[in-house]
Amino acid sequence: MISITSEDIYQSIVLEDMLNAMEAAILAHDEERTNTPQRTHINSKKNTFLMMPCFGEKYFCTKLVSVFPDNADKDIPIIYGTVILNDGHTGEPLAVLDAKAITALRTGAVGGLSVKYLVPKIENLGVIGTGIQGLHQALFTCTVRKSIKNVWLVNRSSERLVWFEKEFRKYFPNINLHKAKNNIELIKNSQLIITATTSSTPILPNDADLLKGKHFLAVGSYKPDMRELPDALFSLVDEVYVDTFHAIEESGDLAFPLEKGLLKREQIHTLADHIRQQTIPTNTAKTTLFKSVGLAVFDLFAAALVYEKMC
Amino acid sequence: MISITSEDIYQSIVLEDMLNAMEAAILAHDEERTNTPQRTHINSKKNTFLMMPCFGEKYFCTKLVSVFPDNADKDIPIIYGTVILNDGHTGEPLAVLDAKAITALRTGAVGGLSVKYLVPKIENLGVIGTGIQGLHQALFTCTVRKSIKNVWLVNRSSERLVWFEKEFRKYFPNINLHKAKNNIELIKNSQLIITATTSSTPILPNDADLLKGKHFLAVGSYKPDMRELPDALFSLVDEVYVDTFHAIEESGDLAFPLEKGLLKREQIHTLADHIRQQTIPTNTAKTTLFKSVGLAVFDLFAAALVYEKMC
Repeated sequence: MISITSEDIYQSIVLEDMLNAMEAAILAHDEERTNTPQRTHINSKKNTFLMMPCFGEKYFCTKLVSVFPDNADKDIPIIYGTVILNDGHTGEPLAVLDAKAITALRTGAVGGLSVKYLVPKIENLGVIGTGIQGLHQALFTCTVRKSIKNVWLVNRSSERLVWFEKEFRKYFPNINLHKAKNNIELIKNSQLIITATTSSTPILPNDADLLKGKHFLAVGSYKPDMRELPDALFSLVDEVYVDTFHAIEESGDLAFPLEKGLLKREQIHTLADHIRQQTIPTNTAKTTLFKSVGLAVFDLFAAALVYEKMC
Repeated sequence: MISITSEDIYQSIVLEDMLNAMEAAILAHDEERTNTPQRTHINSKKNTFLMMPCFGEKYFCTKLVSVFPDNADKDIPIIYGTVILNDGHTGEPLAVLDAKAITALRTGAVGGLSVKYLVPKIENLGVIGTGIQGLHQALFTCTVRKSIKNVWLVNRSSERLVWFEKEFRKYFPNINLHKAKNNIELIKNSQLIITATTSSTPILPNDADLLKGKHFLAVGSYKPDMRELPDALFSLVDEVYVDTFHAIEESGDLAFPLEKGLLKREQIHTLADHIRQQTIPTNTAKTTLFKSVGLAVFDLFAAALVYEKMC
């Protein structure tokens, strides 16, 4: 059994390979070639511990995640995670991997696929929330859309903007980075807007004229009480795309509009058909929305990719 | 996060330390200072995957175990396991440990404690089933009873007898090992009988005269459809001791006699009071029975002991 650190993962992985692995994950999940049992939550005082297994053909894995909110006072991460990868034919444990890098890369790659299949050629990207998720969404977006010239950024913390710039420049030294004054300026300047915040109320203005014809990639809300997207957006989109249908129960960004009747269940799709048909997006006037919450099947395919690269 | 192999565990651990850790585990569980949620079983075709978390004060851990019966045909282990140890105050993953060594040592030590608190000074031990569990039960029994001079052995596989002798000699080169012709000869020659088989029907004769006044340490049956102990034994014992009360639901060795009315729930106790009172067993005529099935709380205290020894 090998131990794979965050540094190992970043050193072994080419972003294009992770995109291919996530295409395979979406198809395997859609075609029921994987089994992802409901995750187990254990609450102890303020803290939460999650066990998330997923069984595939060649491998299975378990992601263990702890969420200790009081860690913020200690200046250490609130979330820690581990992925244990096993041989699917014998059960033998093969590797233990740092879950932070796996989660960031697989979520970023799934977001990148939504751009590949839903968003036409664009030059201007906006990122609201420049933490680890925002960074990885931007990296994979710029990987699938080489046409991007400018990235507009908003974050409450100027430290996180500096961090984002440093990390982003390692991959894309020639793309221009701009700090937007506020979300409205960012939206006006961007054709695709990534939202990667922990907000519980919409962070985009409820203004259909401002949002119309733009593309939205929302990864922040992963619980029913979290929301980034305003009601107005749902009057502009014909379909909403999700990473898996688990997003419907898990994200407030879908639960609220469904409850209010602004969105119907039959308008929600995954990318599976687009991947199978290799659909190329061309309609530049259309407003699109992709909502991602993540699932252990993505951890499985990401961990397997890293393991095979390293062994 | 460090990776701790089976060899690391055996090199770092003195058997007496593991006995002390298991005393602490039994008391912590009895005094509800730990939280052991119900384990999660996931079945896939013939295979089983188990997730067993336990939360303590300083640490928490998750044992992940896979059971792939077809591995027997491939001449590789049917069971593989991993223990992930986390910091109880922050959630940070600290170590990943080989579960085979942890399980063998903690189960052996819990059995050893039952001998310490229930079995008086003896010279002759019998072991039916000389696999990894039988070996570890014998090692810890001989650690707590230095008076033992002879160990009688029965196993269907002569290879496993050779293996047992080699491993046992590393710890106790001066204790005599004997191969018994059958279980009856073994019982006649032994004062304490350890049963560590995977039998689904009683392996001891249903003969009260033969069993009377002897001590039994049964570790084999860990499922409701597994049994090692005959009905006659329950006519001889006033109390049955268990590692934790989970044994009542999990072992056929308790489920069958309870169902038949041969045993009453109020006759079943844990070792917690004996440990608190440091009771020394003196009655040499009494028949005693200890039944152990294991629980993640023992993995937690064993993993923490190994981690602290190594860091």
